[in-house]
Amino acid sequence: MAQIYGKVALIGLGLIASSMAHAMRRGGVAAEISGYARSQATRDTARRIQLCDTVCDSAEAAVEGADLIVLAVPVGAMGVVAEAIAPHLKPGATVIDVGSVKAAVVEAVGPHVPDGVHFVPTHPMAGTEHSGPEAGFASLFDNRWTLIVPPDGADRAAVERVEAYWQALGANCERMEVTHHDLVCAVVSHIPHLIAYTMVGVADDLSRVSDQEVIKFSAAGFRDFTRIAASDPTMWRDVFLTNKEATLEMLGRFTEELFALQRAIRTGDGEELFDYFTRTRAIRRGIIEAGQDTDAPDFGRAKKHDR
Amino acid sequence: MAQIYGKVALIGLGLIASSMAHAMRRGGVAAEISGYARSQATRDTARRIQLCDTVCDSAEAAVEGADLIVLAVPVGAMGVVAEAIAPHLKPGATVIDVGSVKAAVVEAVGPHVPDGVHFVPTHPMAGTEHSGPEAGFASLFDNRWTLIVPPDGADRAAVERVEAYWQALGANCERMEVTHHDLVCAVVSHIPHLIAYTMVGVADDLSRVSDQEVIKFSAAGFRDFTRIAASDPTMWRDVFLTNKEATLEMLGRFTEELFALQRAIRTGDGEELFDYFTRTRAIRRGIIEAGQDTDAPDFGRAKKHDR
Ligand SMILES: NC(=O)c1ccc[n+]([C@@H]2O[C@H](COP(=O)([O-])OP(=O)(O)OC[C@H]3O[C@@H](n4cnc5c(N)ncnc54)[C@H](OP(=O)(O)O)[C@@H]3O)[C@@H](O)[C@H]2O)c1
Ligand SMILES: NC(=O)c1ccc[n+]([C@@H]2O[C@H](COP(=O)([O-])OP(=O)(O)OC[C@H]3O[C@@H](n4cnc5c(N)ncnc54)[C@H](OP(=O)(O)O)[C@@H]3O)[C@@H](O)[C@H]2O)c1
Repeated sequence: MAQIYGKVALIGLGLIASSMAHAMRRGGVAAEISGYARSQATRDTARRIQLCDTVCDSAEAAVEGADLIVLAVPVGAMGVVAEAIAPHLKPGATVIDVGSVKAAVVEAVGPHVPDGVHFVPTHPMAGTEHSGPEAGFASLFDNRWTLIVPPDGADRAAVERVEAYWQALGANCERMEVTHHDLVCAVVSHIPHLIAYTMVGVADDLSRVSDQEVIKFSAAGFRDFTRIAASDPTMWRDVFLTNKEATLEMLGRFTEELFALQRAIRTGDGEELFDYFTRTRAIRRGIIEAGQDTDAPDFGRAKKHDR
Repeated sequence: MAQIYGKVALIGLGLIASSMAHAMRRGGVAAEISGYARSQATRDTARRIQLCDTVCDSAEAAVEGADLIVLAVPVGAMGVVAEAIAPHLKPGATVIDVGSVKAAVVEAVGPHVPDGVHFVPTHPMAGTEHSGPEAGFASLFDNRWTLIVPPDGADRAAVERVEAYWQALGANCERMEVTHHDLVCAVVSHIPHLIAYTMVGVADDLSRVSDQEVIKFSAAGFRDFTRIAASDPTMWRDVFLTNKEATLEMLGRFTEELFALQRAIRTGDGEELFDYFTRTRAIRRGIIEAGQDTDAPDFGRAKKHDR
């Protein structure tokens, strides 16, 4: 129960912002929460479920008097939103974003932030395939990492307060340099999503295997790809458009390896396949030990009504 | 509580066989269960946990007097095992296998099956990344599909009894033609596993991103690949060596699509990316509706001690 900021304004009211609202309330992290989303429909929903103390009809109104402003819109919309709210920011306030890409956001948002207002880019490494104001839940960030990417010369106290805020929402924080952030995320998030989308797209597109067969027999492995391939198309379009360099580099490495395995299959090189498949187990063990997944067999897959 | 067979012999005592043993006991499906595995260590473990009524020191001894013989060894070992037990099979008995590939198993096992013994290839479409005699659990097959791939001219009563047996273990059954089976499995299982292995291999191999970073931040998508990439290397080596044609065909389709998306990223074609990412959501919904997964956000991922 530690209040970190007075008024917090959420711009964008999707999965991430709504989870932040629930986690702020759970922890007593903010004195007041205001919110804004682009469409009337989303604002109406947010009002109906009482996601914020007030939902405003403009971003400008929402940021009025706010101590912390959270940009929680798709990466491609960050710049426009920052420009619109800039003249209305309270001196001494802090702006953070939660975008999945950092170099492009820093470039788009940075120039609009007025003197006397702090800008601290952040990225919570947690998510689900659901989106919108009703998708959020208070525990989304618990025991997950939020990356903090402070620009050169950022105010030390402002950055530390942002870290305290994310910790109060349940997250662990780690600082990272902006280019390295975009590379790490290409590996742990962006390329896995692209590959999952591709695999599901291929399966959907076959004439000799029906969608019904794919769906029925998905428990044999395919299913594990479909969760992330159901994520929001706008968000992911923006990610790939704005983290082009790192994703193309990693994609190059991926196809190189895939071709090596393809050749091993074609030539019947069992030893090469066996060795490759053996190496990858250690990473899985590391993830379970680090508490980022559970070891339960097929856990959460068996029943339908667990939500 | 329906006994389907008198004595059942399990050859190979890994994840699949041990799950079958638990499910047989749960349902009273067999009067007696015997077992055999190649190594002394596995047989000792099986005895210690009382997986079977008797664990034998040879496959020949295990199949003595058995009404149903289950070949639950890696696909590449099916032929040798079938050859070894052939002279010891009881007239009228039924042999099934549970291999993940069917054409190669039919070819390797079929010629060894003596006249008067039935051979019905089957494939339970369920699994976890764990292996060995202690990995099994009774509910593995519940509400999952088992594919039945009867050869031309198979005895109708024998096939129906095999179906009743799998149903008694909790599975739904569907018959499928052998070549189609191998193609469907390439799509829903073999290619997803190969891709997951590749992705994890790439991440493991980078010099600019550490394993520790990959592990810490895996919740952002990467994690979903690691479960299947931790599966048994011997099993998967054999799958790719024996289902070469279908996996190479599907791999060709996959890389074709991946290159199209890569080009869209390179040229900044946001519309193409958006459209592609939109199409794939329907399949996910189908899987949830078919009861092959749960819709819970991040379900089973949050806590560590759920097993
Ligand atoms: N989902 C994840 O797994 C995840 C994880 C980490 C970080 N992120 C990042 O978090 C941010 C938000 O993602 P999310 O998952 O919360 O998305 P979401 O559920 O799709 O919500 C996006 C929100 O942004 C609003 N919005 C879109 N364009 C806007 C604009 N031009 N002006 C004002 N509001 C606009 C939307 O309003 P309407 O509803 O009215 O359209 C909606 O409320 C993205 O930058 C994403 O990269 C996402
Ligand atoms: N795991 C899955 O997800 C899954 C799903 C559907 C079908 N399948 C198929 O089911 C079969 C078994 O898989 P599993 O996951 O149960 O494997 P597993 O846990 O690795 O167990 C394999 C068993 O086979 C024994 N074995 C290996 N080579 C042998 C040989 N030459 N002679 C006699 N026994 C031998 C092993 O004995 P030792 O322990 O002594 O080495 C072990 O008991 C495979 O054909 C696989 O394709 C697997």
